[in-house]
Amino acid sequence: MDAVPYLAAVSALAALGLAGYYYKLVEAASPGNERMVFLMTEIQKGARAFLKKEYQWVAVFVVILAVLLAIVIAPLAAVTYILGAVLSGGAGYVGMTVATLANARTTEAARSGPGKALAVAFRGGAVMGFSVAGLALLGLTVTYVVFVELLEVNDRFEIFTAYGLGASTIALFSRVGGGIYTKAADVGADLVGKVEAGIPEDDPRNPATIADNVGDNVGDVAGMGADLFESYAGAIIAPISLVAFAPILVVGDAAVLPLLMFPMAIAFVGMIASIIGSFLVKGGESTDSHALARALHMGTNVAMGLTVLGTIGISYWMFSGDDYRNPIGLAISVIGGLIVGWALGKCAEYFTSDHYGPVKKIANQAETGPATTILGGVSAGMLSVFASVALILVGVGLAYWGGQITFTEEQQSIGGIYGIAVAAIGMLATTGVVVSVDAYGPIADNAGGIAEMAELDPSVRQVTDALDSLGNTTAAVAKGFAVGSAALTALALFKSFEFAILAANPDEALNLNVGEVAVFIGLFIGAGLPFLFAALTIDAVGRAAQKMIEEVRRQFREIPGLREGEPGVIPDSARCVAISTEASLKEMIIPGSLAVVVPLVTGFISVDALGGLLAGALVTGFALAIFMANAGGAWDNAKKYIEAGHHGGKGSDPHKAAVVGDTVGDPFKDTSGPAMNILIKVMTIVSLVFASAFV
Amino acid sequence: MDAVPYLAAVSALAALGLAGYYYKLVEAASPGNERMVFLMTEIQKGARAFLKKEYQWVAVFVVILAVLLAIVIAPLAAVTYILGAVLSGGAGYVGMTVATLANARTTEAARSGPGKALAVAFRGGAVMGFSVAGLALLGLTVTYVVFVELLEVNDRFEIFTAYGLGASTIALFSRVGGGIYTKAADVGADLVGKVEAGIPEDDPRNPATIADNVGDNVGDVAGMGADLFESYAGAIIAPISLVAFAPILVVGDAAVLPLLMFPMAIAFVGMIASIIGSFLVKGGESTDSHALARALHMGTNVAMGLTVLGTIGISYWMFSGDDYRNPIGLAISVIGGLIVGWALGKCAEYFTSDHYGPVKKIANQAETGPATTILGGVSAGMLSVFASVALILVGVGLAYWGGQITFTEEQQSIGGIYGIAVAAIGMLATTGVVVSVDAYGPIADNAGGIAEMAELDPSVRQVTDALDSLGNTTAAVAKGFAVGSAALTALALFKSFEFAILAANPDEALNLNVGEVAVFIGLFIGAGLPFLFAALTIDAVGRAAQKMIEEVRRQFREIPGLREGEPGVIPDSARCVAISTEASLKEMIIPGSLAVVVPLVTGFISVDALGGLLAGALVTGFALAIFMANAGGAWDNAKKYIEAGHHGGKGSDPHKAAVVGDTVGDPFKDTSGPAMNILIKVMTIVSLVFASAFV
Repeated sequence: MDAVPYLAAVSALAALGLAGYYYKLVEAASPGNERMVFLMTEIQKGARAFLKKEYQWVAVFVVILAVLLAIVIAPLAAVTYILGAVLSGGAGYVGMTVATLANARTTEAARSGPGKALAVAFRGGAVMGFSVAGLALLGLTVTYVVFVELLEVNDRFEIFTAYGLGASTIALFSRVGGGIYTKAADVGADLVGKVEAGIPEDDPRNPATIADNVGDNVGDVAGMGADLFESYAGAIIAPISLVAFAPILVVGDAAVLPLLMFPMAIAFVGMIASIIGSFLVKGGESTDSHALARALHMGTNVAMGLTVLGTIGISYWMFSGDDYRNPIGLAISVIGGLIVGWALGKCAEYFTSDHYGPVKKIANQAETGPATTILGGVSAGMLSVFASVALILVGVGLAYWGGQITFTEEQQSIGGIYGIAVAAIGMLATTGVVVSVDAYGPIADNAGGIAEMAELDPSVRQVTDALDSLGNTTAAVAKGFAVGSAALTALALFKSFEFAILAANPDEALNLNVGEVAVFIGLFIGAGLPFLFAALTIDAVGRAAQKMIEEVRRQFREIPGLREGEPGVIPDSARCVAISTEASLKEMIIPGSLAVVVPLVTGFISVDALGGLLAGALVTGFALAIFMANAGGAWDNAKKYIEAGHHGGKGSDPHKAAVVGDTVGDPFKDTSGPAMNILIKVMTIVSLVFASAFV
Repeated sequence: MDAVPYLAAVSALAALGLAGYYYKLVEAASPGNERMVFLMTEIQKGARAFLKKEYQWVAVFVVILAVLLAIVIAPLAAVTYILGAVLSGGAGYVGMTVATLANARTTEAARSGPGKALAVAFRGGAVMGFSVAGLALLGLTVTYVVFVELLEVNDRFEIFTAYGLGASTIALFSRVGGGIYTKAADVGADLVGKVEAGIPEDDPRNPATIADNVGDNVGDVAGMGADLFESYAGAIIAPISLVAFAPILVVGDAAVLPLLMFPMAIAFVGMIASIIGSFLVKGGESTDSHALARALHMGTNVAMGLTVLGTIGISYWMFSGDDYRNPIGLAISVIGGLIVGWALGKCAEYFTSDHYGPVKKIANQAETGPATTILGGVSAGMLSVFASVALILVGVGLAYWGGQITFTEEQQSIGGIYGIAVAAIGMLATTGVVVSVDAYGPIADNAGGIAEMAELDPSVRQVTDALDSLGNTTAAVAKGFAVGSAALTALALFKSFEFAILAANPDEALNLNVGEVAVFIGLFIGAGLPFLFAALTIDAVGRAAQKMIEEVRRQFREIPGLREGEPGVIPDSARCVAISTEASLKEMIIPGSLAVVVPLVTGFISVDALGGLLAGALVTGFALAIFMANAGGAWDNAKKYIEAGHHGGKGSDPHKAAVVGDTVGDPFKDTSGPAMNILIKVMTIVSLVFASAFV
C-alpha cells in the first residue's frame, strides 16, 4: 500500500507524456493561410501578454502570503505553497499556449470536414486537460512523499495542505482576472460593434474582436484550467488532511494508512482511465450534432466507467481487513459523488439547454420584452438553486452513509465525513479527460472567430459552429463536477479546520453552535460576502467594458476608412488587448484579496466567528454560484434558440429582448458565478492552513 | 411591576380610541364629486372582495393548523393562535377600509392645498397604524394576563407563543397574496396600457387601472399592516418566550419577573410616545418636499425621542436591584436597536433614493441600454446587502453587550441574547406612528390615481404627486425597521427554540454544530429555500399578470369605442379585479404553505437539521430580502430620476431602459422581497411552537 503515491506519480507522469504527445500532434497540423496565422499570432500574443502581467501581479500576492506562512506556520509551508502556485500557473500557461495554437489549426482542419476539426480541437483541449491533472497530481504526490514520508512532518500537516492553498490562490486570481477580461472584451466588442457601428462581433473591422478571442483563452481556458487544478488538488487533499487532523478516527496505526492512501489510489485509477478514454475520442465525417456529441462523450463515459470499476477494486483491496465493517462502503461514497456530479451537470443542462422547458419559457417571455425575459431567467436560476441543493444533499447523504458503514461504531460520524470528502474525488478523478472535453469548447469557439475574421468560405464556419454549439453542452458536465466538488470539498476542509483548531488547543474546541453570538455573527458576514464579491466583480466588468467601448469608439473616429472597411486599413487590436488587460488586472485585486484577507482577519479575532463565516459563505456562495451560472446560461441559450428561428428569429423584438438577457447573463455566468466556487474554497483552505496560528 | 401588562393594555386601548377618532375625522371629510366617489367605491369594493376571498382561503389553513396545534400541543394553543390570526386580519381589514375611504378625500382636500391633503392622508394612515399596534398589543397583553397569570400555564409557554404564530400566518399570506396581486395588476396595467394601447397607466380607458389601485391597498396597506402586526407582536413575544424557555437564566424568582415585564413596558412607553407624536403631524401650505417631509417626520422623531427617554427610565426602574450589575444596560440594547433600525432605513435610502450615487449611476448606465441598467441595479442591491449585514452586526453587538453588562457573570451569555431580543422592540416600539406614516404613502398614491381618472385639474395632480413622492422616502424607514427587527427577532426566537428543545428533553440538547452532517444538510436546505420562494413568487406574478393582460386585450377588442375613448364607454374594471384576485390567491397557496410545512416536516425528521435549516434560511433570506428590496427600489427611482428630465427624460432611450429595470424590480421589491422577512419568522416561530412535539 506504501507504493500508492509512487504509482500515482507515475500515472501523473504518463498524463504529462500524453499531453506532450498531443502537443506534438497539434503542432504538426497546418495553421492555414497567412491571414489565419496572423490572427492566431495576435490572439496568442494577447493571451500571453495577459497571463504574463497577471502572474506578475499574483506573484506579489504569493510572495506576501508565502512570507506570512513561513513566519506564522513553518518555512516549509511556504515552499509547498509556492510549489502549488507555480504548478497551477504552469498548467494554465501550457494549456493556454496550446489552445492558441489549436484554434487556427482547427479552422484549417474544418476545411476538410468536422472529423478532422474535432480531432484537432479535442487534442488541443487534451494538452490542457492532462497538463492540469498531471501537474496537480505530480506536485501533490511529490509533496506527500517528500514532506510526509521522508521528512515526517506529521505534526505539521499544514505543510502538505499549503500546496492546495497555492493552487487556490492562482485559481482565484485567474478566475476573477480572466473572468473580468473575457466579459469586458465580449461586452465591449458586442455593444460597440453590433449596436453602435452596426458591425458583427467577429468582423475584422472591429478592433475589440481580437481582445474578445483572447478573452476566451484567458477566461475559459487558463481560468478554467486553474480552477480545475485547484478543485482536483483540493479534492485529494481534503480527505488526507481530514485524516491527518482528526484524532478520533485514528484508532490503530493500521487504520490510518489506507485512509491516507485511498484518495491517491482513486486518483491513480482515474488518471489511467482518463488516458485510455482520451484515445477513444474520434470524430466521423458527419456534422450532425448527435454524432459529434457521441464521439466526444465516448472518452468521458469510458473513463468514468473504468474509474467506477477500479474504485470498487481498490475499496475492496484496502478496506477488507478486520478494522472495517464493509469493504465497499467507501466505493459507494466515491461512485455516489460521481453520479451526483453527473446529475448536477444534467440539472444545469436542463435549466440552460434549449431542449427543455426553462429556456423555451424564457424565449417565450421575450415576446413581452426584456423585463419579462430578465424575470424569467432570474426565476429559472433560482429554481435551479433549489434543485441543485437537493442533488447535493442526496450526494452528501449517500457519501456519508458509505463512510458510516465502512467503519466501526466509534468512528462512524467522522467516517461519514471522510465518505463525503472522497465523494468529491469521485467527481474529479477523471479530470484529465473532462477538462480536455471542456477546453475543447473555447478552441472551437476561437476557430469560428478566425474563420469569420479570415473571411473563409461560409461552409467552414458551419463546421466550426457545429463544433462550438456542442462545446456549450459539454461545458455543463465540467461545471457540474466543479460546483459539486466545491461544496463537498469545502465541507470536508471545514471539518478538518475544526479538527485543526482542536489539535492546536485541545482544551478549547471550536464552538460551531449557530446559537452562539460569535458564530452567528460570522454566519451573517459569511452570507453577505458572496453578495459583496458578486457586486464587485459585476461592477468591475462594467467598468472594464466601458474603457474598451471608449477605445473602440476612438478608433472608429480616428482611423480613416476603418468603419467603411477600406482595403488595407486594419484596427489597432493590440491597444484594445492592452487596455482590457490593464483594466481587468486592476479590477481583480480587491475582490481577490478580500477572499484571503477576510478569513485571516476574522480568524485572528475569533475562530468561532470564522467557523460561522465559512459555513455562511459556503451555503450562500454555493447558492449564488448556481443561480448566476444557470440564469446566465439560460439567457444565453434562449437568445440562441430565438436566433435559430423561433419567435421571429434574429433581429425581431423578442431577439432584442433576449440579447438583453444574454448581456446581463455574461458576467453572471462567466465572471461572478465561476469565481464563487473558488471563493468558498480559498476561504476554507486559508483558515485550515492558518488554524494553528489563530489559537 | 405586576401592573405592566395592564398598563400596556390600557395604552393599546388608547391607541384604538385614537384610531377611532381619526376614522371619524377622515369620514367627515368630503370625498369629492360623483366620479371620484364612483372610483373610490370601485376601489373599495375590489379591495374588500379581495380581502374577503383571501381570508376565506387563509381560514382553511388557519383551521388546519389550529387543529394540529390542539392535538399536538394543547387545545388552548389553538385558541391563542386563532386570536392572533383574527386580530391581525381585523387590523388589516380596518386599515384597508379606511385607506380606501381616505384616497378620494385626499384628492378632494388636495384641491385646497397640500396641508389639508397631507392631514387627510396621514389620518387615513394613522387609523391603520394605531389599529395595528393597538390590536396587536391588546391581544398580546390579554393573552399574557389570561393564560400566563390567571391560568398559570407556565409549563406550556407555547400557548402564549402561538399568538405570534397566528399573526405570522396572516402576515405571510397577506404579503404573498397581496404582493402578487399588486404587481400582477401593476405590470398588467402598465404593459398593456402603455405599451400596447398607448394609454397611460391611470387613464380612465384602461380596464386594469382600478385593479392597479386596488393592488396598492391590498398589497401596500393590508399586506404591510399584517406584516408589521406580526413584526411588532413577534418582537415582544421573542424576549418573553426566551425568558420562559431559558432555564439557565432563571436564577432567582426575583430575576424573572422584570425580564418578562420589560418588553411590555417598552411597548407601553412606545405606544404613548406614538400617540403624542401623531398629533404633531401637521402640513403647511407649501408643496416644497422638504417642508412636507419635515411635517411628516416630526411625529416619528418626537415619538422616538420620547421612547428613548422612557426606555432609560424603565430600565433604571426595573434593573436597579442587587441581581443586576448595570441598570441601563438593557436600555442600551433597546436604543441600539432603534438606532440601527434607523440606520438600516437610511442605508436603504442611500441605495434607492435619487439623491445619492447608486441611483444616479444606474440612471447613467441606462444610457447604454437595459442590460447595463439591470446589471447596475443587481450590483447596487448586492452591495447594499453587505452594508446592511454590517449594520445589523453593529446592532447585534451593541445589544448583546448591553445585555451582558446588565447581568451577573453566569447569566451573561443568555443575557446578551435577551439584549438582542429587546433591541428588536426598540425598532418597533413606535410602530403606531411609523405605520401611520408608511400607510400614508399608498393613500397619496391612490389619490393621484383618482385625480387622473376623474380628470381633475393638473394642479391637483401636482399636489398629490408631491405627497406621493414623499411617501416613497418614508416607506424606507418602515422597511428598515421591519427588516432589522426580523433578523433580531428571528435570532431570539431561534435561541428560544434551542431552549424549548432542551426543556422538552433535558437529556439531549439541540445539536447546532454546523460541522455535523444533519445540521449542515439543514443549513443547505435553509439557504436554498429563500431562492425557491423567490422563484415561485416571481413566476406567480408573471402568470397572474399574463391573465390580466389577456383580459385587457379582450376588452379593448370586444368593447366598441373603448380604445377611442368615446364618451359613456367605460371598461369592465370589475372583471379585471376579479381575475387578478382569483389568480393571485391561487398563486399564494404553494409558497405560503411551504413556509409552514417545510419546518414541520424537517422537525419531525431531525431537530438538528431543523436548527440548521432555520439558521440557513435566516441569513440567506435576510440577504435576499435586502437585495431584492433595494435593487427594486433603485431601479424604480432611477426611472423616476430620468423622468424628472435627466438623461433625455421621458420617452428617451435611457428612459426605456430604465422602465425595463423598474418592471424587473416590481416583483423584487413588492412581492418576493417583503415576503422574505415573514418567511424567515414564520419558519422560526412554527418550529418554536411545535418544539416539544418534535422531540
